[in-house]
Amino acid sequence: MTAVFFAMPGNESLAAALASGTATELGSLEYRKFPDQESYLRFLGNVTGRNAVLACSLHDPDGKTLPLLLAAAALRDLGAKSVGLVAPYLSYMRQDRRFKEGEAITSLAFARLLSGAFDWIATIDPHLHRYASMAEIYSIPALVGHAAPVLVDYLRQRHGTIFLVGPDEESEQWVSSVAKAAEAPYVTLRKTRRGDNDVSINFPDIMKFDGLTPVLIDDIISSGHTMQVAVTQLVALGFGQPVCLAAHGILAADAMQRLKAAGAVIVTTNTIPGPTAALDVNPLLVELIRPKLIGESKP
Amino acid sequence: MTAVFFAMPGNESLAAALASGTATELGSLEYRKFPDQESYLRFLGNVTGRNAVLACSLHDPDGKTLPLLLAAAALRDLGAKSVGLVAPYLSYMRQDRRFKEGEAITSLAFARLLSGAFDWIATIDPHLHRYASMAEIYSIPALVGHAAPVLVDYLRQRHGTIFLVGPDEESEQWVSSVAKAAEAPYVTLRKTRRGDNDVSINFPDIMKFDGLTPVLIDDIISSGHTMQVAVTQLVALGFGQPVCLAAHGILAADAMQRLKAAGAVIVTTNTIPGPTAALDVNPLLVELIRPKLIGESKP
Repeated sequence: MTAVFFAMPGNESLAAALASGTATELGSLEYRKFPDQESYLRFLGNVTGRNAVLACSLHDPDGKTLPLLLAAAALRDLGAKSVGLVAPYLSYMRQDRRFKEGEAITSLAFARLLSGAFDWIATIDPHLHRYASMAEIYSIPALVGHAAPVLVDYLRQRHGTIFLVGPDEESEQWVSSVAKAAEAPYVTLRKTRRGDNDVSINFPDIMKFDGLTPVLIDDIISSGHTMQVAVTQLVALGFGQPVCLAAHGILAADAMQRLKAAGAVIVTTNTIPGPTAALDVNPLLVELIRPKLIGESKP
Repeated sequence: MTAVFFAMPGNESLAAALASGTATELGSLEYRKFPDQESYLRFLGNVTGRNAVLACSLHDPDGKTLPLLLAAAALRDLGAKSVGLVAPYLSYMRQDRRFKEGEAITSLAFARLLSGAFDWIATIDPHLHRYASMAEIYSIPALVGHAAPVLVDYLRQRHGTIFLVGPDEESEQWVSSVAKAAEAPYVTLRKTRRGDNDVSINFPDIMKFDGLTPVLIDDIISSGHTMQVAVTQLVALGFGQPVCLAAHGILAADAMQRLKAAGAVIVTTNTIPGPTAALDVNPLLVELIRPKLIGESKP
């Protein structure tokens, strides 16, 4: 009678893995849309006095967030002792300052909404660009896991046959630490962004890696435009089928098709479900949240 | 430099009518989706120290609510003196109690979200079923307009040729007052609902209205299943092309096609935009919010 996990729609396997991994109960959330497209939610089973946890990865967040907030409010209303959120991918981390007058700093507003609805949040590699930590914007405890060990495990299986390509100079520290752990050489792209979909890149001298497979690595593959340009150039330089490796496979619109057409293989973790999600971060999440569940279940 | 109106996407003509009707400024909100489907919002022009008003009708609300909450937060962050919401159709009024154990009472949770984001809200005929007033669930001032005068104006144009058909006994008081104002006779359906889409109805004796056009009237046409059954029966009884008249034309899924196929004409107000929205409630909204704008614009 301690914690109980519930899946928001599309997060069933995540919730099942978390409940199984923490040896707690998997509850059932009945969810459907009324004919007028409002959400109907019903929690089956008793939540009173229990630590409830919602599983909901937050890619493509605009249609998911209201049902999630309504679900959190319902759990509280039904007497849950605490309400946590496991969001392997956390949205609205990117608009973190006002680049032009009048812009909405959506990361702050979104963090306030979640902070008002949940007691704690757990996520993997949030895109902390200009923020030093989650605590800068989230007023609730934020448990942050890192996908790097899972990516390193994958890279080690290809030891001696690969080199890493980092997306930009800003990520050099992260890429170099992954490369060191994987015992693989690396280079870093020089990138010039002209718009959401318009990026030009320059390679440093990489012909010294002739014969190795390039692994383009990033925290997120979103539109995939930078990677697509890089893959095309690498193939033109004679490198064998490049791998696009990332923690989060947003793969917006036709990104997957474009990257494949350019000649790439895409490998991501399952923070976002999909056909590229070959690497499993759920064991990481289990270890991340376990102390929280035990800690909060004490009377 | 008093109030300034902004349209959420799809509410441009509403915002323009409100700004024009109240002789205040129509501001410009730049809205688009990033490739990863997060919302980008930018308010053009100065809002600091001003009473800002967002226009956003809330049919099909799950995808609209997060951008709306982010917009309200941005206006506040940009220094707006107050942030109001004009939502001609207000969502999440129907799940107003726990019918089954574990159900989310979404009306309360939704009201709390809007109450936390806005200083006031204006709407037309919210579906106050078991609530006595908006103040029971909204903690901010709620200005409530009534579409009845607009519906009565329409009915008066057909004076002497129509009779009204109310949807159920619960709405008899409202239907009888509309019928009295329109100087038209009325009857009320006896309805038995077995599910969202499964309704059986009985007519009281209506053959005394032979030769008149039936006008089926309700506050909302949602799935339209009840009206469809009623229209089919009325046509079978020999009544000429029935009119389906409502304040709010949700017209979920293929409701419009089904009602037309059954032989009906659909007439709604423009609380929800669409091809049936022939009746204009914007002048009502202008009068409703005018005192609020003047009152709040004092230093």
